[in-house]
Amino acid sequence: MNTLRSTTTNGLLEREFTLGDDLHGVLWSPSEDPAPLVLLGHGGGRDAKAAPMAGRAKRLVEAGFHAVCIDAPGHGNRPRTAYDVQQEAAMKEAMATGVPVGPIVVPYNRHLADLAVPEWQATLDFLEGLPGIEGPIGYFGLNMGTAIGVPLTAREPRISAAVFGIFWYDEQLATHAREIKIPVEYLLQWDDQHIPRESGLALFDAFASTEKTLHANSGAHKEVPRFEVDSMVRFFQRHLR
Amino acid sequence: MNTLRSTTTNGLLEREFTLGDDLHGVLWSPSEDPAPLVLLGHGGGRDAKAAPMAGRAKRLVEAGFHAVCIDAPGHGNRPRTAYDVQQEAAMKEAMATGVPVGPIVVPYNRHLADLAVPEWQATLDFLEGLPGIEGPIGYFGLNMGTAIGVPLTAREPRISAAVFGIFWYDEQLATHAREIKIPVEYLLQWDDQHIPRESGLALFDAFASTEKTLHANSGAHKEVPRFEVDSMVRFFQRHLR
Repeated sequence: MNTLRSTTTNGLLEREFTLGDDLHGVLWSPSEDPAPLVLLGHGGGRDAKAAPMAGRAKRLVEAGFHAVCIDAPGHGNRPRTAYDVQQEAAMKEAMATGVPVGPIVVPYNRHLADLAVPEWQATLDFLEGLPGIEGPIGYFGLNMGTAIGVPLTAREPRISAAVFGIFWYDEQLATHAREIKIPVEYLLQWDDQHIPRESGLALFDAFASTEKTLHANSGAHKEVPRFEVDSMVRFFQRHLR
Repeated sequence: MNTLRSTTTNGLLEREFTLGDDLHGVLWSPSEDPAPLVLLGHGGGRDAKAAPMAGRAKRLVEAGFHAVCIDAPGHGNRPRTAYDVQQEAAMKEAMATGVPVGPIVVPYNRHLADLAVPEWQATLDFLEGLPGIEGPIGYFGLNMGTAIGVPLTAREPRISAAVFGIFWYDEQLATHAREIKIPVEYLLQWDDQHIPRESGLALFDAFASTEKTLHANSGAHKEVPRFEVDSMVRFFQRHLR
């Protein structure tokens, strides 16, 4: 790990790092070690330093966890391919013209997940060796964070509790969900203008977990209530302690 | 109010009371006044003194609320009519023989709600006059507590936040739900052997509340996870403070 920057504010240690050629991330740590680790998968168009990740990381550190987020392929300052540029333009056009965006997002995010899963595994291999990171590992990610997190969690036995949501049902993603047996908390927006209600419910249904909870909130795609951050922290407190 | 018994344990004041000819209930209060009030509607076959109500009341008092539960008609030591006896036998037989129990529970609980709603209103009239009870009022009730609580909340402007769940969709109940605009948290068991999933989702959908949250947990009818008690307390902390 090449640490680019390290700052400590009110007991929150924030380390921006690169790993290998191309991987960039942020690791947030509490002052008291050892502590379990939560992986944060950011949403589409965001990156590891975006406010939604930094805010959740701060809450997790306050609750005594490490949190880490890495830039997804084609996100942050990472190189973007012609395919990335083309897909992003197609998503924007679909949203602007009211065409369903799911049929674009789902295969594009599946492509990104194919690249991102081994990157998360390399990150995990590295972080596991750091002093102070100890105990079971959690994963949080909505939207694209779910598209990447579900196949990652299906493949990765080190992850023992996960929060997913705000994504479409798709046969390939559901196949991975059916392999997941760890506790899952799953978010769905009841009035999502992009994801049909039945599609979100079907993806929740697919998880093989004996312990899973759906939190469906009134409101549109981007209106996930702030109190769900508290719920996520409590979920990890129940399962990673 | 005729107080039958009054005990204080670790700052929890518990008063068993009768009101009028036939009403029996328990009022749990914190040592620090004034505090908002949460009404607890018990499930079928239970009463105000049953462990699930006393346990939730204790948690609410610890969080700084009063809590009250009254015996529903035909429950606790209240007189049971021939109709009560007949319906209870029909429910037991349906469950034993695997016949759907909803078509018996729904009309029977509607009958009980017709009797119980004015009793709750009389209880509320009385408790509002007690010193130390102040602020907005909440309602919690699952199963029969929802069958009674939904028409009560639709009619009662003093209730400003409610937790419901574990009940069947029915046109009459849904009509009341469509009149409810206050924040609602709604529980559903994803693998309920008695209530079809679609039926529970349809009742949640019926609430007109702009702020409503569905908590759907894996597990059977009676397997509502204990952490939902914490969630209920936090819901009232958000909305009654």
